[in-house]
Amino acid sequence: MTDGKDLGNANLLHDAMIQLGDAARAAMRELLAVPADAKNRALREAARAIRDSTSALAAANAKDMKTAEEKGTAGAMLDRLLLTDGRIEAMAKGLEDIAELDDPVGSIMAEWPRPNGLQIQRVRVPLGVIGIIYESRPNVTADAGALCLKSGNAAILRGGSESFHSSTAIMKCLQAGLRAANLPVAAIQMVPTTDRAAVGEMLTMIDHIDIIVPRGGKSLIERVQNESRIPVIAHLDGNCHVYVDRAADPTMAIDIIQNAKMRRTGICGAAESLLIDRTCAPELLPGIINALSQAGCEIRGDDATQALDKRVVKASEKDWDTEYLDAIISVKQVDGLDEAIDHINRHGSHHTDAIVTEDSAAAEKFLKNVDSAIVLHNASTQFADGAEFGMGAEIGISTGRLHARGPVGVEQLTTYKYVVRGDGQVRP
Amino acid sequence: MTDGKDLGNANLLHDAMIQLGDAARAAMRELLAVPADAKNRALREAARAIRDSTSALAAANAKDMKTAEEKGTAGAMLDRLLLTDGRIEAMAKGLEDIAELDDPVGSIMAEWPRPNGLQIQRVRVPLGVIGIIYESRPNVTADAGALCLKSGNAAILRGGSESFHSSTAIMKCLQAGLRAANLPVAAIQMVPTTDRAAVGEMLTMIDHIDIIVPRGGKSLIERVQNESRIPVIAHLDGNCHVYVDRAADPTMAIDIIQNAKMRRTGICGAAESLLIDRTCAPELLPGIINALSQAGCEIRGDDATQALDKRVVKASEKDWDTEYLDAIISVKQVDGLDEAIDHINRHGSHHTDAIVTEDSAAAEKFLKNVDSAIVLHNASTQFADGAEFGMGAEIGISTGRLHARGPVGVEQLTTYKYVVRGDGQVRP
Repeated sequence: MTDGKDLGNANLLHDAMIQLGDAARAAMRELLAVPADAKNRALREAARAIRDSTSALAAANAKDMKTAEEKGTAGAMLDRLLLTDGRIEAMAKGLEDIAELDDPVGSIMAEWPRPNGLQIQRVRVPLGVIGIIYESRPNVTADAGALCLKSGNAAILRGGSESFHSSTAIMKCLQAGLRAANLPVAAIQMVPTTDRAAVGEMLTMIDHIDIIVPRGGKSLIERVQNESRIPVIAHLDGNCHVYVDRAADPTMAIDIIQNAKMRRTGICGAAESLLIDRTCAPELLPGIINALSQAGCEIRGDDATQALDKRVVKASEKDWDTEYLDAIISVKQVDGLDEAIDHINRHGSHHTDAIVTEDSAAAEKFLKNVDSAIVLHNASTQFADGAEFGMGAEIGISTGRLHARGPVGVEQLTTYKYVVRGDGQVRP
Repeated sequence: MTDGKDLGNANLLHDAMIQLGDAARAAMRELLAVPADAKNRALREAARAIRDSTSALAAANAKDMKTAEEKGTAGAMLDRLLLTDGRIEAMAKGLEDIAELDDPVGSIMAEWPRPNGLQIQRVRVPLGVIGIIYESRPNVTADAGALCLKSGNAAILRGGSESFHSSTAIMKCLQAGLRAANLPVAAIQMVPTTDRAAVGEMLTMIDHIDIIVPRGGKSLIERVQNESRIPVIAHLDGNCHVYVDRAADPTMAIDIIQNAKMRRTGICGAAESLLIDRTCAPELLPGIINALSQAGCEIRGDDATQALDKRVVKASEKDWDTEYLDAIISVKQVDGLDEAIDHINRHGSHHTDAIVTEDSAAAEKFLKNVDSAIVLHNASTQFADGAEFGMGAEIGISTGRLHARGPVGVEQLTTYKYVVRGDGQVRP
């Protein structure tokens, strides 16, 4: 343990975590009765506190940066860790944006009367206590805490040890917001130690935490999914496909594949694989390959594709299952729509897949039969994003099937209860 | 291993389970494209096959009954195992009722346009492959298989070894229905062995099974929740409360508590605990105690309640946390609504709780702040049932918070996907 409170031995850590959990559970119960206004006020006051604390945040961040640099941390990670004035302002603005979102809590999802006179409503309520486990980006402390609060949940945050001082300083601002709105301060808590064993503790606190959301690299997410005794909402792989149908508009095909692959290569909605109908490949593929190559993309193709352009290197079987997150794409020619759908369902990660075609029957078949969280017709896979969907901020994109699929915004951080109103009914 | 195919050693069992899982996954993909009519036809044909097989079903059941009797199985369990002609007809009728339900698959839950012209829909789709693990009742084979099929899911069923022959015979009827409707026979499969290790295998098949639904006693459900690597939808406890407020109508209070406790004591919606406002207890409680006692209910009360009637025995702290599923009730006097809410949130099981009051502000506070799947105002807790809610058949009542809460009908066995239609949009 290098930072944070020294919690001594395993028993002390366990007791501290249980205390945190008890406080979260109590805060969550209080939040059940809190109106939208109070939550929004807390978010706006937290934003104000963040702006007022710009220099304190920068100083805390400087400590984390210094330690990270001394450890020889890689440049990309250092960049994720850094809080500039611009990033601090963006964090404050992010809280205000979340305050502006519609409050999902209390909305009536469905209601119906029964012949015996009972009135039944299905009403949105908070999920409960949410545990967020994340890596170096300190702004997740503000984003995740705010999304949980907006949806009426208590949050227990566990950030990376490298951002401990930054996150602690951000946490103070969030709690100042809670205090200003007379909300329980334990509505957003941070694990007060960098001890890695705290993550293990969190993942077994089935009586205190209702759901775990890991945010970070694949190894973090796999650890959480393997160890957690609590249900997990996680984003695993984004092995996204674009299928160019025989009835595709040639210009649109080039535009979409170019954008889906190259706009940003490091995001989960970036395309990793291009499938194309064998019958239109000779006509369309040379232009697509040329455009991608000129943009600096490495192309790994099957034999038929390699034969078209010598810049294409040979794809191995493994390429069909690979999320590159880089300027590389795999290309395979298929015998029409059915093979494309089958390939995507077998090799894809059920995240986001697109078809380019002017044939609406082919499009509808693709949209229905491709078993992914997001399916698109004539649009780039890079739209896989909560903000692009108009859902506001998101805590991630779920590749699981249960509870939340696709972008996880404030609505997906709720559950429901049944409210039944009668006038003395008893069951015969 | 006493029944079913001998799968020899652990490797053979593992291979057989993986084969089952692969077949289920393939069937599930085929089901994505199947219209409602075909699923309903399969259900009606299965019902017909059950009626046509009444004598074969009775003969298979007689084998199971004989083995169970020879083992000295208890009477209640024997009764659960027994298939009479009436129960066989009820099973066939149950399949026809499920065919009549609205098809949840493909329904548009929400749709909205984006400023860039993208049209976004959230569409209901099947969950995937559902594993059902249950105990002695053979009719679960038909009910659970049919609910999964109706919602477009493939099912892998694992019934109790004691009902193996009965379930196998029912399974044949379901598969006859699938065949008659040209649906993949692997849409509903049964684990072809009574080897207990098969349950352990199922619970680790994360690539083949999307969700596990255990149906049975507490020890089964606890085993499944402890061992499963797959998300579980389960019904744990039903420690349900009735709170009699100071503004309760006295006659209604007696009627509701009497019905909630005594209509059927063995169901999960039966009340186990009565809370009553201290200020109205002297007036209302003697009548309630008298009615319950005369109906044969044992009453375990706090000191103040014991003082009112000598038939009341002393409640221990443990009673507040106990689901009796029997003609026993615990009674506690509380200092008003807030203590009632707090007691229920602490000691209840978040299943079903009711308030009896003529004070609508008190009722609304109770409905909002009691953190349970079902909350009722002036109605019996025994309405906690999918059919009573008008949802049709259910696979159980979920006490979890994620995905499905309360009755789990065909709608709760679905998830959703986002369908995005564009005309060439790329992300700026």
